[in-house]
Amino acid sequence: MGSAVTRRSFLRAVGIAGGAGVLFETMGALGLAPTAADAAGRPFVPPSRADFALSGRKAPKVVILGGGIAGLATAYELGKAGYDCRILEAKNRPGGRNWTVRGGTVERELGGYEQRATFAPGLYLNAGPARIAQFMLTLDYCRELGVAIEPFVNQNADAYVYYQNAGPMSDVRTTDRAVKADTYGYISELLAKATTQGALDAELSADDKDRLMAFLEDFGALTRTGGEWRYTGTDRRGYSVLPDAADHPGTVLGPPPSLHNVLASQLGRNLSFELGWDQAMMMFQPIGGMDRIPYALADRIGGHRIEYQAEVLEVTDQPDAVHVRYRDAKGRQRMAQGDYCVATLPAYLMARVPNNLGAAVKAALEYPTRVHVGKLGLEYRRRWWEEDDRIYGGITNTDLDISQIWYPSHGYHGKGGVLLGYYTQGPGTDAFDRMSPADRIKHALAQGVKIHGPKYAKEVVSAFAVAWDRIPHIETGWVAWPSWTSGQYDLLNQPHGRVYFAGEWLTRFMGWQAGAFLSARYVVSEIHQRALATPR
Amino acid sequence: MGSAVTRRSFLRAVGIAGGAGVLFETMGALGLAPTAADAAGRPFVPPSRADFALSGRKAPKVVILGGGIAGLATAYELGKAGYDCRILEAKNRPGGRNWTVRGGTVERELGGYEQRATFAPGLYLNAGPARIAQFMLTLDYCRELGVAIEPFVNQNADAYVYYQNAGPMSDVRTTDRAVKADTYGYISELLAKATTQGALDAELSADDKDRLMAFLEDFGALTRTGGEWRYTGTDRRGYSVLPDAADHPGTVLGPPPSLHNVLASQLGRNLSFELGWDQAMMMFQPIGGMDRIPYALADRIGGHRIEYQAEVLEVTDQPDAVHVRYRDAKGRQRMAQGDYCVATLPAYLMARVPNNLGAAVKAALEYPTRVHVGKLGLEYRRRWWEEDDRIYGGITNTDLDISQIWYPSHGYHGKGGVLLGYYTQGPGTDAFDRMSPADRIKHALAQGVKIHGPKYAKEVVSAFAVAWDRIPHIETGWVAWPSWTSGQYDLLNQPHGRVYFAGEWLTRFMGWQAGAFLSARYVVSEIHQRALATPR
Repeated sequence: MGSAVTRRSFLRAVGIAGGAGVLFETMGALGLAPTAADAAGRPFVPPSRADFALSGRKAPKVVILGGGIAGLATAYELGKAGYDCRILEAKNRPGGRNWTVRGGTVERELGGYEQRATFAPGLYLNAGPARIAQFMLTLDYCRELGVAIEPFVNQNADAYVYYQNAGPMSDVRTTDRAVKADTYGYISELLAKATTQGALDAELSADDKDRLMAFLEDFGALTRTGGEWRYTGTDRRGYSVLPDAADHPGTVLGPPPSLHNVLASQLGRNLSFELGWDQAMMMFQPIGGMDRIPYALADRIGGHRIEYQAEVLEVTDQPDAVHVRYRDAKGRQRMAQGDYCVATLPAYLMARVPNNLGAAVKAALEYPTRVHVGKLGLEYRRRWWEEDDRIYGGITNTDLDISQIWYPSHGYHGKGGVLLGYYTQGPGTDAFDRMSPADRIKHALAQGVKIHGPKYAKEVVSAFAVAWDRIPHIETGWVAWPSWTSGQYDLLNQPHGRVYFAGEWLTRFMGWQAGAFLSARYVVSEIHQRALATPR
Repeated sequence: MGSAVTRRSFLRAVGIAGGAGVLFETMGALGLAPTAADAAGRPFVPPSRADFALSGRKAPKVVILGGGIAGLATAYELGKAGYDCRILEAKNRPGGRNWTVRGGTVERELGGYEQRATFAPGLYLNAGPARIAQFMLTLDYCRELGVAIEPFVNQNADAYVYYQNAGPMSDVRTTDRAVKADTYGYISELLAKATTQGALDAELSADDKDRLMAFLEDFGALTRTGGEWRYTGTDRRGYSVLPDAADHPGTVLGPPPSLHNVLASQLGRNLSFELGWDQAMMMFQPIGGMDRIPYALADRIGGHRIEYQAEVLEVTDQPDAVHVRYRDAKGRQRMAQGDYCVATLPAYLMARVPNNLGAAVKAALEYPTRVHVGKLGLEYRRRWWEEDDRIYGGITNTDLDISQIWYPSHGYHGKGGVLLGYYTQGPGTDAFDRMSPADRIKHALAQGVKIHGPKYAKEVVSAFAVAWDRIPHIETGWVAWPSWTSGQYDLLNQPHGRVYFAGEWLTRFMGWQAGAFLSARYVVSEIHQRALATPR
C-alpha cells in the first residue's frame, strides 16, 4: 500500500472491489441472531411537512401539558410536520424529572425547605435519570440532537461492598472484585464437588461433565488440592501489595473468607445487578449533564413554543377543540386552545387537574402507585476516591439506608467532583424526606464515614439533597402499576376525545427516560394518523 | 440552606465543623480493607534538585538507550533533579511500542512492505498498549502530565460471541449477555439440584443451604417449575422485540439453548476474562490516543534531550563513564558518553548490541522468549456497529484466527471510526505476518464478514495492519520469562558497572505499560542513591 490510498485503490488492493467483492455478497445465510435493529420494535416514521402539503390539510394545533421528555419529544416530532405546538410547563426549566443540579440551582420543596446548589463550575448531579443503556431510544435522540455522550460507569471491580448486616462479615469493607472472586470461586468448588461425586450423573453425559469441570476450573479459579478442586483465593481479588519492578511479585489479597462466611454473609447479594437487561454495561450519559437532552429538545422546538411557570388548572375536551385553563408566571389565569391536547403530567398530578374526561379516567390516573426516590449530591474539592481508593466511577453497594454511593463518571483527574451520597427508592426514602436538607446530608455523611473514613465528612464542601416527593409539580420518582392488565393502563393509552396521555409510565420502559420517548412517538403517530384521516 | 453557602456555613449546618466534627474523627477503627494507596508497593520519592544542592554534588550525566516509556520516564524523573539526560531513540517518534497510528503514519516493515495510514482526522489505532486499569501507575502519570483520560470499554454485554468450533452451536452468533445468562443460569440450576438432593450436605449447614439457594435463584434467574429450580431463560439475554409504548411488553430473546448445548459448545469459555485482576472494568485510555503519554513525557523532558533516528551500535562500560557509539539520522557514527547508561531496548535487541558487559549478561538478554503480536485497524465512514448492532465499544470474541474485534471506545455517534480487526498473540500471529498487508486485511475482512455480514467488507475505506515482529527496532509484542527464578531476570535487574537495564519486562507488570514506569522508577531510585553516595 506504498503511497496514499484512495478508497477505490484500497478496495482493489484487498480484493473487494469488482469480482472479488461478489464473494462477500454471496456468502448466503449467515446464521445471525436478530440484530439490535431488528429488535427495535415498531418502526417510527416521523411526521413530515409533506404529509400535510400533499393532502392539502393544515397542520393542527396541539397543546402539550408538561415540558418533560415526553412533552418535549412530542413537540419535537410533531414540529417536524409543522404542527403548531405549545408546551405549558409548570417549572422554570425544561426536562421535568430529567434534572441536572448545578451551581446556582435553586429549589424550594413542598414543605418550605429551600436549597441552593453551590457546586463549582463543571460539577453537577443528575438528580433524575443518570444512565442510558446502549439499546435505549434515548441514545438515538442524543445522536439526532447532537448531544455528545460518554460512558456511565455502572460496574466497577474496585468499588466497595459494605454490609452492616452480613453475619460473620458484618461491617467489613471489601471490593466488588473480591466478592465476585470468592462467590464464583466457592460456587464453582461446590458444583465441581457434586459433579465429581456423581450427584449430577442423571443430568450430564461424561462429555458434559468434562466440559463443565473445565469451565468451573477457569471460572472459579480452582486449584487441584489433595485430589479435589478447591477455591483457595485468586489474584482476581486484587493485591494487598501490587507487583513491582525487580524482585517484587506483589502479594495477592488474601486469604479469602471461608465458604461458610461467604454464604452466611450473603456478600454476593448484589452480583446479579450487572447482569440485568437494563443495567448491564455498557451504559452512557450525556457529556455535561443529563439535562443536555431536554435543553437540546427545547432549542429545536423553539423558545416561543414553551411557556414556563405555567400551571395547568383545568382541561376541557370539546367536540371541536381542547381548552386548557392555566396560571401563568405572573399569576394570571389564561386559556390555551388546541385541536389536540397531550397531557404528560405524572398520573397522580393529572388526576388532580379538574377535567371533563370522566370518572374512569380519573380513577385510572389515581391507580399507579408512587415510588419515592431521593438522591444526594456531595461536592468535594479533591477526588480522593480516585487518588486514595483508585475508584474511577462506579457504585459502592451497602445495606445502610443510603443504599449506594456513586462515584462520578466524568471529570476524571479533575479538581473536584460530586459523589452521589445516597440513592433511595421506595419506603427508605421517607425517613430522609422527613429530615431537613441539612439533616439528610449530615446523616448520609455519617453513613459514608463508615465506608470511607473521616475524610468523607471532613472534605465535603457542599451538598444538595433531592427529595423527589417534595419537588413541586413532580412529587415522586416514578410510579408502579399494581397490574398492567386491569384496564387502567390501557385506558390511559387511548385518547379521550381530543386528549392524549403520554409519559414513560405508559410504556413497558417504565422508570426509564427511553419510555418517555417511546410514549411520545406512540402518541405522535396516533395524532398524525388521526389528523391525516380528518376530512378536509 | 436558604442562600449561598460557604464551606464554613455548610459544615456548620451539617454539624461537622467544631464539636460535632470530632464525632467523625473519633470513630476509631473502621475495619477497612487495605486501601489502594496501601497496596501501591514501595513508595517512590522522585529525585529533586535539592538532593544535589544540599550535598554539593553535580547532577550526573545519563545516556538513555530507547525512547519508549521506560526511557522517557527515566529521563523525566531524573530530570526533576537536574540530571543531564540524553535519549537515543532509533525511531522517528517517542513511545516505542506505545504507538498510535493516525492518518499520515508511515511504517516500512522488515521485509520491505510499507504502509501509510489514511485514517480520517481524529481517528486512530492504538497499535500497542490500549487499556489502563484503575490501579495502574500509568494513570498517575496521566494525572501528573495532564493527559486527559476516558473509559476504555473492555466488557460489553451487547458485543458478540462467535465460535466456529462450538459443537452444536458452531457458527452461531450470539451476545455476551446471552452467553452469560445461559451459562450462569444452568450452573445455578445444576448446583441447586445437587444442593436440594443433599449431595452437598457434608459441606453445607442447613442455613448455608438456604442462603445458597437464595443466591442461586437470583444469580441464575431460576424459576420453580414442577418442584424443581430450573433455568428457562431470562430477559438478561435481551429482547428479540424491545418493550414499547402501550400494549407492547416486548419479546424476550429465546428460548435459550439446552443445558447440553451450552456445555457442549463451551460458549462460556471466555467468561473469566472480565474477572481478571488486570482486565476487570473499569479501564481507561488517554483521550486522543495512547501516544499522548509519550508525547507529554517528551515535551516535559525537552526536545533537545531526545535524538531520534539514532541507532545504538555499541556500549562500552568504563571505570569512569559509559561510552555509547551510535549512528545518527544522517548515517554518521557518533559517540555519547554518560556517568551512567540506562538501556531500555527490548532484551533481544539489546542482546545484539556489541558491549563489554560479559557473556552472562548477553545470555540473560537472550533468555526471554518473544510473544508475537499483531493488530489491524479498519476504518469505516459509518459507525454501523453503533447504528445497526447497538454495540458501543467493547470486544467481540471469536475462535477465528482474528481472535477478537474491538469497537472503538471513543468518538461515539461520530462520523466514522477505526475497528480493531484482529488482535493476535503468539503463534497465531505468524500466519498473518507472512502475508502482505493487503492480504492480512483481505483475510481479516473475510473473517469479520462471518460475524457482521457483508457490510464489514463493503463499507471499509482503509486499513493498517501492524505486524510487531516486523517493526524495525521493536520486532515483537512483548516477551515471556521461561522462569523468573533461574537467575537471568535478577541479573538484568542489577547494574553492570555503570549500565542499568529498564523495561516492563524487568517487572512483574510484564506486558503492561505500567511495568515500564515501575522499572524506570526502580532504576531512577538506584541511580540516584548511587549518585548521592558517590564521594564528591
